[in-house]
Amino acid sequence: MPDIGALLSPTSVAVVGASPDTHILRGRIMHVLGCHPYKGKVYPVSRSHDEVMGLKAYRTVSDLPETVDMAVLIIPSAYVPDTLEECGAMGVKAAQIITSGFAEEVGGEGEKQQRRIREIAEKYDMAVCGPNSEGFANMALDFCPTFSPAVDDPDTPLLPEFRKEGRIGVVAQSGGMGFAFYDRGRPKQLPFSYVVTTGNEACLEGFQLVDYMLDQDGTDVIVMFIEDIKTPSLFPSVAEKAMRAGKPIIVTKIGHSQAGQRAAASHTAALAGSYAAYNAMFERYGVIEGRDIEEIVDIAAGFSYWRDKLPKGKRVGIITGSGGAGGWMADTASAEGLIVPTLDDKTRSAIDAHLPSYGTSQNPVDGTAQAVRTVGYANLSKMVATSDEVDAIIAISSARNASRYEAEFDAMAQVARETEKPIVFNSYTMPKPEGFEIIGRAGYPLYTNMRNCAHVVGCMADYRAYRENFLKAPEISTKSRRSARGAELLLSGRRTLTEFQAKQVLKAYGVEVPEEVLAVNAAAAVEAATAIDGPVALKIQSPDILHKTDADAVALGIEGAEAVREGYELVVAQARSYRDKAQIDGVLVQPMAPTGREIILGVNNDAAFGPMLMIGLGGIYVEVIRDVVFAPAPVSSDEARAMLEQLQGIALLHGVRGQPPSDITALVDLMVTVSQIADDWRNEIAEIDLNPVLVHAQGKGLSVVDALIVKRERD
Amino acid sequence: MPDIGALLSPTSVAVVGASPDTHILRGRIMHVLGCHPYKGKVYPVSRSHDEVMGLKAYRTVSDLPETVDMAVLIIPSAYVPDTLEECGAMGVKAAQIITSGFAEEVGGEGEKQQRRIREIAEKYDMAVCGPNSEGFANMALDFCPTFSPAVDDPDTPLLPEFRKEGRIGVVAQSGGMGFAFYDRGRPKQLPFSYVVTTGNEACLEGFQLVDYMLDQDGTDVIVMFIEDIKTPSLFPSVAEKAMRAGKPIIVTKIGHSQAGQRAAASHTAALAGSYAAYNAMFERYGVIEGRDIEEIVDIAAGFSYWRDKLPKGKRVGIITGSGGAGGWMADTASAEGLIVPTLDDKTRSAIDAHLPSYGTSQNPVDGTAQAVRTVGYANLSKMVATSDEVDAIIAISSARNASRYEAEFDAMAQVARETEKPIVFNSYTMPKPEGFEIIGRAGYPLYTNMRNCAHVVGCMADYRAYRENFLKAPEISTKSRRSARGAELLLSGRRTLTEFQAKQVLKAYGVEVPEEVLAVNAAAAVEAATAIDGPVALKIQSPDILHKTDADAVALGIEGAEAVREGYELVVAQARSYRDKAQIDGVLVQPMAPTGREIILGVNNDAAFGPMLMIGLGGIYVEVIRDVVFAPAPVSSDEARAMLEQLQGIALLHGVRGQPPSDITALVDLMVTVSQIADDWRNEIAEIDLNPVLVHAQGKGLSVVDALIVKRERD
Repeated sequence: MPDIGALLSPTSVAVVGASPDTHILRGRIMHVLGCHPYKGKVYPVSRSHDEVMGLKAYRTVSDLPETVDMAVLIIPSAYVPDTLEECGAMGVKAAQIITSGFAEEVGGEGEKQQRRIREIAEKYDMAVCGPNSEGFANMALDFCPTFSPAVDDPDTPLLPEFRKEGRIGVVAQSGGMGFAFYDRGRPKQLPFSYVVTTGNEACLEGFQLVDYMLDQDGTDVIVMFIEDIKTPSLFPSVAEKAMRAGKPIIVTKIGHSQAGQRAAASHTAALAGSYAAYNAMFERYGVIEGRDIEEIVDIAAGFSYWRDKLPKGKRVGIITGSGGAGGWMADTASAEGLIVPTLDDKTRSAIDAHLPSYGTSQNPVDGTAQAVRTVGYANLSKMVATSDEVDAIIAISSARNASRYEAEFDAMAQVARETEKPIVFNSYTMPKPEGFEIIGRAGYPLYTNMRNCAHVVGCMADYRAYRENFLKAPEISTKSRRSARGAELLLSGRRTLTEFQAKQVLKAYGVEVPEEVLAVNAAAAVEAATAIDGPVALKIQSPDILHKTDADAVALGIEGAEAVREGYELVVAQARSYRDKAQIDGVLVQPMAPTGREIILGVNNDAAFGPMLMIGLGGIYVEVIRDVVFAPAPVSSDEARAMLEQLQGIALLHGVRGQPPSDITALVDLMVTVSQIADDWRNEIAEIDLNPVLVHAQGKGLSVVDALIVKRERD
Repeated sequence: MPDIGALLSPTSVAVVGASPDTHILRGRIMHVLGCHPYKGKVYPVSRSHDEVMGLKAYRTVSDLPETVDMAVLIIPSAYVPDTLEECGAMGVKAAQIITSGFAEEVGGEGEKQQRRIREIAEKYDMAVCGPNSEGFANMALDFCPTFSPAVDDPDTPLLPEFRKEGRIGVVAQSGGMGFAFYDRGRPKQLPFSYVVTTGNEACLEGFQLVDYMLDQDGTDVIVMFIEDIKTPSLFPSVAEKAMRAGKPIIVTKIGHSQAGQRAAASHTAALAGSYAAYNAMFERYGVIEGRDIEEIVDIAAGFSYWRDKLPKGKRVGIITGSGGAGGWMADTASAEGLIVPTLDDKTRSAIDAHLPSYGTSQNPVDGTAQAVRTVGYANLSKMVATSDEVDAIIAISSARNASRYEAEFDAMAQVARETEKPIVFNSYTMPKPEGFEIIGRAGYPLYTNMRNCAHVVGCMADYRAYRENFLKAPEISTKSRRSARGAELLLSGRRTLTEFQAKQVLKAYGVEVPEEVLAVNAAAAVEAATAIDGPVALKIQSPDILHKTDADAVALGIEGAEAVREGYELVVAQARSYRDKAQIDGVLVQPMAPTGREIILGVNNDAAFGPMLMIGLGGIYVEVIRDVVFAPAPVSSDEARAMLEQLQGIALLHGVRGQPPSDITALVDLMVTVSQIADDWRNEIAEIDLNPVLVHAQGKGLSVVDALIVKRERD
């Protein structure tokens, strides 16, 4: 195991390529290192200087007077592998490679050189971060091997003086983005533990670093900027560890859009994974997605302050001295999914005693500027928090002038310590630095963006609910239910299973499928139809015709021997005219399915994260509005139910306009089973497509009307 | 006409209630006035001081040595009306009433006192702003009769020194919010013309002030915070004037949510209008809605800089030195509805010549930090702007240290002057004040919020497209097509028109309705059915049964004399059992409508803005997802078409899954006609409900299957 501690917290470090010229990166990194009181030894290594910024320089790593824990490499890319080899041979345990020009370079030797870096790191079991990275910062050690200007001010301590708890650890593939989080968060008096920028991730990956931080004390909230996840299997275990520890992970994963994918691909030669799969994985593990730098910092701030007292629900009390701001925040909170209830009478009369006649206690509690000043935020918060109607409080302020908070600082600090409900501040004017400090010191995060402020409260409530559920949820059984019959059906034969074959697989897993017969001639079709009560459906079965209706090779509602015979011939003829070389297994004869709510249920085996179950409301309406939800397979019944509840059109399944509710239990069972099949055969199955499934009224089950399984291409 | 110029730009002003004590509002207002070099005369009026802040004070307005243009009243509410009366009698042309305690106060005399203010203002034709307001600021005159701390810094000139063009005028009902826009915008070096806060709007309303600003030079962008519009008819004319002048109005209207409505109602005793109607009115007049303070300031900044060169479309080129930031912005831009195309080969090769091997020109153009520094933003922007593939450019920077822009300042300024495509900057680090200044001085708005940055580009493109369309659109005919027949149908009789009667109204307007007969007994029903080809529908007609299916008083697909007779009796019996006292007109006998796409088309006569046409896709799917669009009636064909295109499920009408496109032309005609009916009879009709309308395949028209008109209640 590479020693990540030696990388992030070394007692001695060599800077290979160090220069005294602060106009170039090799000098800037020495300058930044020197801005902070790092207590370890720093050894410049330079071919052209005997001394760099007052420190004796050495020609090579081998010349150093001691074996350092870690080396920073900032030398031309051609020299990187040999220098790394030299470090490894000397017993250096870790390296941070700043140099660019590896896999991110189009054409050339970069890709090969990067592979060499990886081989050397493995050979010496070194913890190697980079290349093409901006370095990192370890705040507790005042250690900043980076050229980032975000940490080059010697007068700004890396950690706020009053706030060391609730630290935020940043891991970012992009150096600019990684330090941007710090750059935005530090003036808001947020404490960071690390900013690590990982660049091309030739060796160490983001989630390995997060794993390390989770194992240490001192990081309570994780922020990540992800371009790709090179070893996807790292994600579930690290994300689960974080969830169990109650340390939220807040991420952005770029590459949602085509243009974003282009950027990721060209930037770090990463293949941006399918975004739907990323999204499903994030949801599964309660990972919180942020949409821009400011939003991510704001979410992190909420957790940094209130991680032990997250809101039990989404009902907020709003305190304001500006009626306009209160009303606007009420709208904003509602738009963000929060509830702004009228307060109960008891709470209201307690508050009313302190308000002028033109104030109101209903919620927003508009004390008017005057009353907010005389009664104070502390008192108002305390009174609102006693109401059983609210789970959290948003206090609206004008924090432009911080002085007004000085008078009630002690009371505010006491309320922050004692409250069981989180309280956040939002300022409509732009606070001066002192505003962030005084409100932060009192124990509250201060927001300046109304939408973010409301959104953060929602995120915190969601996270709490998600985590409580996660901790008590039974493990999903991943015990294989592979059977000999399933194996026979799936392992032998063609890449595409027809409807008939696919349903046999479902049957082997206990799914009830209609009595149906694969007829190979018209007489057999007539015989099969006769045994069925009522009209039948006739459908071509061919591995070469995946979409039977496109070929018009389906006949529905056929009744009577003659009609069946004609139907059989017609279906076969249509198939032939659609694709004359199509291999035809026969015609499936099945009873017409009773009506039901149309559902599409499928599986896509994602290259990174494995099989993803997909559920959607079927029919053309939903084709138009794309109402589908994904989750990694296998899913539990609870998860399947939760997926359904995420559908925009879920009300249709619950029954609308006097129509009966659908058999959701049967659908949930089918979802669980299909996810189990996908999991059992994750190395064999590429896609499953049950479309449509007709879900009948409650208690009446469902009918899988069509089915298709496509196996993975053999390598 | 009250003289708003006398209010906002007086040459002399009396401050009634002035005090030297800066701890109270009456002293703060004097202090703030004194912070800026206003050139007019200021007369304190005070009962208890002979001098206030070095100015001789007078006992009453009548004692003043001259008739001032304007008086600021900041005295207890009980004295306000008499003092205003005194001002009026003295010939004072305008007053700003700061005092609270009027209509916003629950119970008491406030409401009555506010009415008196209004009467006095009308009597003397005074321009009166307030009460319950925070005053205003006129930047050009350095005149700030307000106690807002946002303008109390004598060292910060109200206007940025380098930027006087593209001024933003703020009109806000909330004082806190009005000055918050300025507080946020000024550090971004944005020029403001006015901040006017109007409080209770007893006399002058927001749109009157906007109208005044539009008539003056010196305001190019309007920002409004609206709690309610007291005289709704002001809105269309002022909004249209702004659109014709190319001066965008950016608003927030609070009260979307129940809680927000509560806040608005309690705050200024305003009835928050129906939000759907506000929304429709904003869309009709191209008014831009902003969702929070920062977003509104950011949108205003875009127009302030680029109002004469708005983007011709939504295609953006992104320039970045950070690959991570570029990819993230590409995602963000796509999420905001922008297009991030790959650049054309010619542009790419021109750019490639300047990029290192690990940069990319495809778009995002990732020059790498190094290249962005050496090639420069000016050159890169110029090269990207030459591409026919882009309409606007987003330049991503780290504006934390402004010094890097100094070297290429002249080039950047030149590009800003010469470009035909707007260029905006987004900084991922937090800029220092100098960052805003240098980039602003060079001619570019600088954003710090990625989503806002992308959103602004979209807003600017939408506004341009909207305006071009607006200017060339023919006037909608509002010529009444009222007819004698229509009048007979609508003016006589009951409040509720049955389906039969409602369709007669449609018929009078030329809408084709199926041949149908109102049968008053079974025999008449049979006779009517016999004359119809195919099965018929039988529907109860009663003004007391608005929803016939709820009463089960409908029989469908009936064929044959006996069945029709039975159907008639059944329908009547069901109606009786549903509501035994129901007045029954008879049973409507009509042909069954051919199948078609289900649409709901209606009108709601909004209390503030009059009839609003509503269109939605019908059926249970859409009931669930609430896919409806509103617009003020009457609408032109173009507008009707644009409404349809806003439906989430519009693809259904264009034809999906091999189904033919629907007869959109017929639907558009019906929308126009219904909107015309609603307009012609705006004083008579409260609601129209055509539900469902079945739209048949292209060229086949549509069938109005059910119809209902409800008239307005007589006062």
